[in-house]
Amino acid sequence: MFDTARLLADAPAADHGSAASVAERAEHVLRPHRAFARLDDVATWLAAWQHTAHPAVEYPAACVFVADHGVTVEGVSAYPSDVTRAMLGALSGGVATTAVLARMLGVRLEVVDVGVGEPTANLATEAALDPEGFDRCFAAGRAAVADLDCDILVLGEMGIGNTTAAAAVCAALFGLTPEDWTGRGTGIDEATLERKVAVVRGAQARLKDAAPMEVLRCVGGAELVAMAGAAVEARSRSIPILLDGFVVTAALAPLEVMIPGALDNCIAGHCSSEPGHKLLLEKLGKQPLLDLDLRLGEGSGALLALPLVKAAAACVTEVATFEEWGLTGPR
Amino acid sequence: MFDTARLLADAPAADHGSAASVAERAEHVLRPHRAFARLDDVATWLAAWQHTAHPAVEYPAACVFVADHGVTVEGVSAYPSDVTRAMLGALSGGVATTAVLARMLGVRLEVVDVGVGEPTANLATEAALDPEGFDRCFAAGRAAVADLDCDILVLGEMGIGNTTAAAAVCAALFGLTPEDWTGRGTGIDEATLERKVAVVRGAQARLKDAAPMEVLRCVGGAELVAMAGAAVEARSRSIPILLDGFVVTAALAPLEVMIPGALDNCIAGHCSSEPGHKLLLEKLGKQPLLDLDLRLGEGSGALLALPLVKAAAACVTEVATFEEWGLTGPR
Repeated sequence: MFDTARLLADAPAADHGSAASVAERAEHVLRPHRAFARLDDVATWLAAWQHTAHPAVEYPAACVFVADHGVTVEGVSAYPSDVTRAMLGALSGGVATTAVLARMLGVRLEVVDVGVGEPTANLATEAALDPEGFDRCFAAGRAAVADLDCDILVLGEMGIGNTTAAAAVCAALFGLTPEDWTGRGTGIDEATLERKVAVVRGAQARLKDAAPMEVLRCVGGAELVAMAGAAVEARSRSIPILLDGFVVTAALAPLEVMIPGALDNCIAGHCSSEPGHKLLLEKLGKQPLLDLDLRLGEGSGALLALPLVKAAAACVTEVATFEEWGLTGPR
Repeated sequence: MFDTARLLADAPAADHGSAASVAERAEHVLRPHRAFARLDDVATWLAAWQHTAHPAVEYPAACVFVADHGVTVEGVSAYPSDVTRAMLGALSGGVATTAVLARMLGVRLEVVDVGVGEPTANLATEAALDPEGFDRCFAAGRAAVADLDCDILVLGEMGIGNTTAAAAVCAALFGLTPEDWTGRGTGIDEATLERKVAVVRGAQARLKDAAPMEVLRCVGGAELVAMAGAAVEARSRSIPILLDGFVVTAALAPLEVMIPGALDNCIAGHCSSEPGHKLLLEKLGKQPLLDLDLRLGEGSGALLALPLVKAAAACVTEVATFEEWGLTGPR
């Protein structure tokens, strides 16, 4: 398996000088003091990772990873696995929600098939991926980002069964009860939820002493591993990441558990209605920009938050300071 | 004074047929059932007021009304009244926050001076506007919107002292204590807050039996009255309105108190950090799209929410249905 820790250790640090410059300018633009504090902090974060005192969102990209999950044989989802392939087509064909959002927002969208029609092993009974499979998916994620020229990256996913994988990753990494991490995903009934919780409970018991990346390999599944690879590549290129929902955040969480600060180049686009997502964002210390009870995935929640990030930057760099406008400033 | 009730009574009703058509389509697009419920409801609302089953945000406009307030002599603000004129210039000159946002988002911005340098009377001691002044401001608001060709309207304001006016309007309309409605505005200290609360208490006592539009005349001030006029004109043209912060919402609240449903063509763009805003949105039954602790005004919070409204519409009209994509649909 890849030496992820080494890749992260070699990644460039944040540009604290640019961040401080943006934070300083935000204190003096034509607004009451701290009236836009939340967004000023976003602009400052963007400066740190874009390594410039003039942060901007001009050529955003989204990578959506799609795969099938063997765990669907346990009856944990409201939809059959066939839907994964249909949605792969709809994403590529421009008629899925995220394709519509990307077009509307001028975001380059890459849809990456990392195992549609070739499900991972059933995580309820064995490791979802063997070490070679893990490396292949991780490398696919890195390669998707290595090819991109972008100033901010949205990660997204689609894969019937993947909220079960995400819940299992979180339960193994952070403890608490399986119920805390397991939600209704695409909208499952009570009996399906019980089966899902049982799968997560089994995974948690099996993996309670496993290393973070081993957790990801055993229960994450292909697109979660690919997203972790994409995040590591983005970090090594100092590309800021806008996180989507529960599954994306769970896929990247092992990196933060392994090396605290590994996700400092990530902010949370939204908090979904999956109960585990709120909990996970708290564990990671990330405050979401949006909280609209969405639960689609595909990167959609992050795309919806993208205009806020773009606005945050413009509202520091393009708004005049009190001094520039010939005023003596606040207080 | 204008017969506002008559104007509202003559306004066209919502288009329930188009709304039902959009709501129906939202049930069948390529997403888990109700996964985008909050945004689907926004698309449905937009269809109702745009009177089309193909709602869209293609030519949005923002009207920002600017005026001075006599109540500033009471020492209720952190900034001198001169700042109102400076911000009028910055808004018109493209260097204020809202000007930057409007440019970024392709929003036509109209900045309307309804009394800069000619403050209304001090609401702490007399009616801020006499009936003629009220009519002049109300007509200016109507005229600003009558000239606009737009498919959605953002209302905004700037005026040193106007959170005092907004708090007084709310306290007179809805009761509760002056403290419930009075916040720190642009960032005032404790002593200033005490003076502000005292002004609001006096206004509340004086106006406790006044009719809603009379409350607006006596304590609202010029730009609040203009915004109420703009809202009435928008309603008469069935233009959907995206509400900004506390001051805008307070300016329009008398319309809803006078005729329940008068603000059905309005949704809340955000909830500001002014404590009275949250309370007021609850009174009006409006759930905000954003909640980012902003407290600028100028229409900025509504502009930040505008891409969500645009996305909500596109995510119903442009996303394929399960049937269109050759699938049997959810469950």
